[in-house]
Amino acid sequence: MLENKFSFELITQSGKARLGIIKTPRGNIDTPAFMPVGTQGSVKGVFLDDILDTNTQIILGNTYHLLLRPNIEILRKFNGLHKFINWPKPILTDSGGYQIMSLSKFNKIDLKLGAIFKSHLDGKKIILSPEKSIQVQKAINSDIMMVLDECPKLTKDKKIISKAIDVSTEWAKRSKTEFGNNKSKALFGIVQGGLYRDLREESLSKLKKIGFDGYAMGGLAVGEKQNEMFKILKETTNLFPDSKPRYLMGVGTPSDILGAVREGIDMFDCVMPTRSGRTGLAFTWEGKLNLKNAKFQNDKMPLDPKCEIRNLNKYSKSYLNHLIKSNEMLASMLISLHNVYFYQQFMREIRKNIKNGTFDVFYEKYIKLLK
Amino acid sequence: MLENKFSFELITQSGKARLGIIKTPRGNIDTPAFMPVGTQGSVKGVFLDDILDTNTQIILGNTYHLLLRPNIEILRKFNGLHKFINWPKPILTDSGGYQIMSLSKFNKIDLKLGAIFKSHLDGKKIILSPEKSIQVQKAINSDIMMVLDECPKLTKDKKIISKAIDVSTEWAKRSKTEFGNNKSKALFGIVQGGLYRDLREESLSKLKKIGFDGYAMGGLAVGEKQNEMFKILKETTNLFPDSKPRYLMGVGTPSDILGAVREGIDMFDCVMPTRSGRTGLAFTWEGKLNLKNAKFQNDKMPLDPKCEIRNLNKYSKSYLNHLIKSNEMLASMLISLHNVYFYQQFMREIRKNIKNGTFDVFYEKYIKLLK
Repeated sequence: MLENKFSFELITQSGKARLGIIKTPRGNIDTPAFMPVGTQGSVKGVFLDDILDTNTQIILGNTYHLLLRPNIEILRKFNGLHKFINWPKPILTDSGGYQIMSLSKFNKIDLKLGAIFKSHLDGKKIILSPEKSIQVQKAINSDIMMVLDECPKLTKDKKIISKAIDVSTEWAKRSKTEFGNNKSKALFGIVQGGLYRDLREESLSKLKKIGFDGYAMGGLAVGEKQNEMFKILKETTNLFPDSKPRYLMGVGTPSDILGAVREGIDMFDCVMPTRSGRTGLAFTWEGKLNLKNAKFQNDKMPLDPKCEIRNLNKYSKSYLNHLIKSNEMLASMLISLHNVYFYQQFMREIRKNIKNGTFDVFYEKYIKLLK
Repeated sequence: MLENKFSFELITQSGKARLGIIKTPRGNIDTPAFMPVGTQGSVKGVFLDDILDTNTQIILGNTYHLLLRPNIEILRKFNGLHKFINWPKPILTDSGGYQIMSLSKFNKIDLKLGAIFKSHLDGKKIILSPEKSIQVQKAINSDIMMVLDECPKLTKDKKIISKAIDVSTEWAKRSKTEFGNNKSKALFGIVQGGLYRDLREESLSKLKKIGFDGYAMGGLAVGEKQNEMFKILKETTNLFPDSKPRYLMGVGTPSDILGAVREGIDMFDCVMPTRSGRTGLAFTWEGKLNLKNAKFQNDKMPLDPKCEIRNLNKYSKSYLNHLIKSNEMLASMLISLHNVYFYQQFMREIRKNIKNGTFDVFYEKYIKLLK
């Protein structure tokens, strides 16, 4: 039965790796969990009906994109994103901070006003305050909202990172005030601090004082090396409260996810399954396959003989190779769906191995193979 | 029960409009029938599972494209196109003649050798003789094959058309010899003759002497006006044998189909449902809608409230408008599928109205609306 409030339960651990369950009024989420990304209200190239069949329990929507298009008014007309796009399960929305840094043509951080930027669509000037970000996320009717943060580009400059922590902490407070008291939804804080343990600790400690339903690691997966990311996780995840979900934003390859789960991370999101799908790259238990490669031209085997979603196990690699070479949209459709399916199978195996106390064996087997 | 040989039965008529059934070992085809086009082994942007759900009973494959890619060897490895693409029902293949005229960079007609052309993919010189075309169609394992013809561009020059008839007649003979005696498959002849009744009659009469399982009107839908096409059909369809299916190649809009059915045509193929789908054009009972249009931004209604395939009736026009503007692949996927569904609903209504003797009423209602 679905409960009417948001909660997180830690079920068991295998080393630092955690098995848990997030409960929301729209559905439960088994953790560690992977969230496919529906940037503009569509997980690119895939029907959401099929996403449901992959056992995906939550998807991510991007506040920045949805604010620009369709816009708040239309989202409100549909009582939020779920009905607009036909997705009955939980949605997590980011706050827009990351996209403002990476996408908009001009951006300026004003502690008081918020993020000031020009739309990458039409150059229109927009001010996104912490309050506005939460208002947009409420219009989206998202189940898990993120505070607006300042996400600096990869840097070793402690001053820049410190300033981002100051801004982000202040905005986190204002986000929480705007979020108000709503037990059916969740608001997550975002920890900044780059690759510095002391800065991460400072940021987290300030956020914990404010108090959130979950804590995210922001400012990673922005160009650092995998071992740098694993190192900062190793140094800091023990500082996070055990009783709240931990979310590593924008990560990553199966190997990235595996290493982060090992450090105690519970939630992930990434465009990789669908973006790779559109370029003919398939994730499999044997590693990543480039289906454009001529060696697949005569390969009559499917990507996964056991995958019955949309009859994916009836499509040979030979046919996929043909579709890619012929520039047929169906190639993107089939491989993107396969990849989301693979990611969710992978998360299921991770959860099974944590439950069985065999996570370390699983980790050793796949950490290099699935990079 | 499926029969082991190809046959056609004319069930009833409403005026000249014919209701019939084509039987093949891979399935029956109710006529008038519409065939979605799977040029390169994919009906663009649509899963073939979903095409099945639209009540499509046959699709078309293009010999020219499939000869170039994947190629005959790969098709033979899969015992033909059906298994390669996962389509269990009948496939009709054209002969390659039309594409050689419209696509290849250089082409020359040599009565003895065949069509000599350069591949539009890599410029490689290829000779397609009538025999080779049938051999490729046999490698495709297609259920209804077409003779190789010379399809001239739209012209009023009787000499050019006459020459094309001479070549096409000769090639039709050779195609039939190569096809041999195979009751489980069908071979159709292609009538040329442009917009001239006398030339069409000459071409058809020569083909009838050779004897085919069906007769196609070629060289139409090449740029002439709709009323010119209807006129030549009106003047010539009574010359076709009643006992064989009549196929109007490459046609067309719902209105084109309606007018041609009225003249006694049984089969159609066209890329229009999927090509329009990729540009945001939807076919509906109210006419063609350009979903890019801003007026749909706030339209919460689906394209067809009754269409349950893939939950299409859950997608609002507002959402489709958003997806198109956002350049999301899902827009093409949803609208292309809707359009194929609409075409098949339209064909079903045509058949129902012929059966009920009300075809003329149906014709008057939609001939202008569905142009």
